[in-house]
Amino acid sequence: MVKTTKLAVVQFCPELGRKDANFSCMRRLTDDIDADIIVFPELCTTGYFFLSRDEVSEVAEPVSGESGSFFSEIAREHQAVVVAGFAEKDGDRVYNACLIVVPEERRPRVYRKTHLFYREKQCFDQGDTGFFVVSDRWRDVRIGPMICYDWRFPEATRILTLLGADIIVCPSDLVTDIWRRVLPGRAIENKIYIAVANRIGAETRDDEKLLFTGQSAIYDFDGNEMHSAGPENEIVLEVEISPELTRNKSFNSFNDMLGDRQPQHYKLLL
Amino acid sequence: MVKTTKLAVVQFCPELGRKDANFSCMRRLTDDIDADIIVFPELCTTGYFFLSRDEVSEVAEPVSGESGSFFSEIAREHQAVVVAGFAEKDGDRVYNACLIVVPEERRPRVYRKTHLFYREKQCFDQGDTGFFVVSDRWRDVRIGPMICYDWRFPEATRILTLLGADIIVCPSDLVTDIWRRVLPGRAIENKIYIAVANRIGAETRDDEKLLFTGQSAIYDFDGNEMHSAGPENEIVLEVEISPELTRNKSFNSFNDMLGDRQPQHYKLLL
Repeated sequence: MVKTTKLAVVQFCPELGRKDANFSCMRRLTDDIDADIIVFPELCTTGYFFLSRDEVSEVAEPVSGESGSFFSEIAREHQAVVVAGFAEKDGDRVYNACLIVVPEERRPRVYRKTHLFYREKQCFDQGDTGFFVVSDRWRDVRIGPMICYDWRFPEATRILTLLGADIIVCPSDLVTDIWRRVLPGRAIENKIYIAVANRIGAETRDDEKLLFTGQSAIYDFDGNEMHSAGPENEIVLEVEISPELTRNKSFNSFNDMLGDRQPQHYKLLL
Repeated sequence: MVKTTKLAVVQFCPELGRKDANFSCMRRLTDDIDADIIVFPELCTTGYFFLSRDEVSEVAEPVSGESGSFFSEIAREHQAVVVAGFAEKDGDRVYNACLIVVPEERRPRVYRKTHLFYREKQCFDQGDTGFFVVSDRWRDVRIGPMICYDWRFPEATRILTLLGADIIVCPSDLVTDIWRRVLPGRAIENKIYIAVANRIGAETRDDEKLLFTGQSAIYDFDGNEMHSAGPENEIVLEVEISPELTRNKSFNSFNDMLGDRQPQHYKLLL
């Protein structure tokens, strides 16, 4: 019997600067779900479209802040791993980050976005954690977090796969849908699940409007879409995945997707 | 005015061990075309399904052999770059290789397949050239060759892009069509053209039958299929491409597909 894990991906419309409203919405959407892993969008407690570091600094929090406490509570209540984007403050630095809360563990892990998009470059420090995988031995699943624009870099999913990820989780505030034409291939080439939790709605600042594209999606390790959302609806996507099925990367007696790599010829990637 | 380049991709059925028949077929198919770049399949002069090094050694040739001469002649006649797979012998080594013949240059370049598939591991030496790009200043196009199963490794297309390729050319003897779900995304993530020259037909050895899947395809740098072949027909796909349109990788005032890479976080790829 192959064990399955219940995955939930939350798509909603965070309101800029209104944490309490966002907490309420996320609680309402997840109250009745039954999940082992819950993924929320990027910067889902604060909203997205900041124009300066000062603006971000006003709402950013340390891991122990109210966003961290909120997601730890959700994790504990559901006995689920929670992955959620938030604006992190660490001393005088601010990061577009995501928490990975494993309920049995004392401290959440924090991934800080490696590739910054658009005006994020004016607002956030460059992420310095690099990529890592959270091995959850209670649910026997290995989770590789990345955030939104990280999707554009095949290096990110590849590294997470090399680190043993069964599933890539990607809190997002995407404004295009090009990613939908690329991520199925990434699932195939790495034989991993990919879950994109994207937000919906729009934010306008100084006459510039960002329209978020929703369509949150979960791909299986053959690149098939298991479930997806519309471009505008609030929804929780729920599917069952089989993490251990991603672990054998060989597909005939001669070839193995990772074993066949020839890193001695990859030096130009660095 | 953006300059265009005429690209031709040849799909046919090489016969195992019958070089003369294969030369004749390739000549017949290309006699009347008007092209600046012509791409033929993998091992297109010898056929594919060898079972041992000894078998390959019998038909493999140095670059200066009859296959090399044949493709140099085709290149000269058409004043076109020719890319074509062949079995290369170099001393006591044998490679699944491809020639890149630029008619104005004295010597062809040779790419030796980096990632070997299935029984190729019993028959060929590991390719040792690594990836490189051929800059053709006469036609102003930068060509990045890879061969068949190299497609499975996002590292290959990425390196060729970093080396400045406008177009990836991929002589192939593919036996699945999974690649069709992945390569459009590779074109998008790297903003490059991709041309796959696949063979058709079947070869049976010791009761094992390999069925080649055809469907040769040319993708533009937005991942759109410009032209493709059926799974069984002999055909030359002809399109016009605009190599210089691939060269600006920025897509807004903050972001650049290659400039945004963070190689300090990619060390695990090696």
